[in-house]
Amino acid sequence: MKNNIDYSLYLCTDQDLMSTATVEEAVEQAILGGCTVIQLREKHSSSLSFYKTACRVKLITDRYHIPLIINDRVDIALAVDADGIHVGQSDLPCSVVRKIIGEDKIIGVSASTLAQAIQAEKDGADYLGVGAMYSTSTKTDAKVVTMEELKKIRKAVKIPIVVIGGINQSTLVNFKDCGINGLAVVSAIISQKDIKRAAKKLLQQYKGE
Amino acid sequence: MKNNIDYSLYLCTDQDLMSTATVEEAVEQAILGGCTVIQLREKHSSSLSFYKTACRVKLITDRYHIPLIINDRVDIALAVDADGIHVGQSDLPCSVVRKIIGEDKIIGVSASTLAQAIQAEKDGADYLGVGAMYSTSTKTDAKVVTMEELKKIRKAVKIPIVVIGGINQSTLVNFKDCGINGLAVVSAIISQKDIKRAAKKLLQQYKGE
Repeated sequence: MKNNIDYSLYLCTDQDLMSTATVEEAVEQAILGGCTVIQLREKHSSSLSFYKTACRVKLITDRYHIPLIINDRVDIALAVDADGIHVGQSDLPCSVVRKIIGEDKIIGVSASTLAQAIQAEKDGADYLGVGAMYSTSTKTDAKVVTMEELKKIRKAVKIPIVVIGGINQSTLVNFKDCGINGLAVVSAIISQKDIKRAAKKLLQQYKGE
Repeated sequence: MKNNIDYSLYLCTDQDLMSTATVEEAVEQAILGGCTVIQLREKHSSSLSFYKTACRVKLITDRYHIPLIINDRVDIALAVDADGIHVGQSDLPCSVVRKIIGEDKIIGVSASTLAQAIQAEKDGADYLGVGAMYSTSTKTDAKVVTMEELKKIRKAVKIPIVVIGGINQSTLVNFKDCGINGLAVVSAIISQKDIKRAAKKLLQQYKGE
C-alpha cells in the first residue's frame, strides 16, 4: 500500500483549532470532502487519551480506506496499527523509527531545509512534509521555507513531498507547478465550520477543476 | 532477567528536581550508592531529547547491569532496547503495551487502588508502583494510598510491589513489615547534593543495617 499513497490533500488534525465536533467526526467530514491522508496530532493529550482517540479515528479511516498517520508517537502508531508515523526534527530520528516500525509502514519526515530533506530520504523516509511555507499561528516555531528552497528540495529528492504551513484557498495556487505531491492542511480544514465543504473546495482548486 | 529483579531501591529520575549533574551522572551516582533499578522519566522533553538522554543513561545502566525502565514512552523503550516500561493510569494500558513490547520486557504499572492493582496483575504487569504513599510536591495530582489499602493490595497480588510518593529517610521505616519489595524514590535521592550518599543511607536504613 505504502507506495501508492495519494497525498493530494493531507489533513493534520489539531484539537485546539477545532470548534465543536470530535476528532473522529472532523476526520470523517474531511474524508467525505476528499482528504486522501489523515495525520492525527495530539500534542497535549495523555498517552491514554491519544491512544483512545487514535482507536476511534482508525475506525473511520479504515472504513474509507484512507491511510492514518500518527504524529511523533511511534508507540501509539504501533498500538493502533496505523499506516504510518510522521516525525519532525525534534522527534525520534527516521532511522530509529524504521527499526521499530518495520519496512511496511509509512514514515514521513518534516523538513525545512535541503539538508534535512536529503538526510530524511537517505534515512528511509517515504515522504516529506516541507514547510512552514508561510508563517502560521498553528506552529509558531516553524522556519519559513522559500519557494526557491522548495524547488531545490524537489530536484534533490525522489520521494513524495507535501507542503505545509499556511496552505489555504489563497496560497495553494503558488504550488501548482512545483512538482509537489500534495497539500498538507491544518486550520484551512479543521477550523472551518463546514469541514467537508472546505476540503472539497481546496481539492477542486488544487486539481484545477 | 525480568523475574529476578531486585527492586529494593528504585530510582525515578526527574530533571526538574536535579541541581547540577546531568541525568546520566546522577544515575551513575545513584547506582554507586546502591540503587537497584532506574526509571527514566522525562515529562517535558521532546521525543528526540528523551531518546538521546535514554541512550546516554543506557550506557551507564548496562555498565553496572542495572535494569533501565522507561516511563510512559514505549517507543523510547523500544528505541534504546530498555529493560522495561512503566505506565501510569493515564498512559497506554498494560495489555496494549504487552502486545507492542513482547513477553521478555518488564512492565510496571502505577496503582493507587486495590482494583487498579488487581487489574494490572491480570493485564500482565511484572510489578506495581503503589502510591502516592504520602502527598508530595513531585506529583501533586496523585491520590494518597492508606497503609490499609497497601496491605490489601499486598494480600491480593503476587507480583512485586514498590511503594512511591514521599518515601524518604523519615518515612521508609513505615514499610519495613508490609511485605513490599522495594522503595521507589524521586526527590530523596535525585534532589540531594550527594546522590550516592543519599542512596546508600536510604538502602542501609531500609535493610536495617
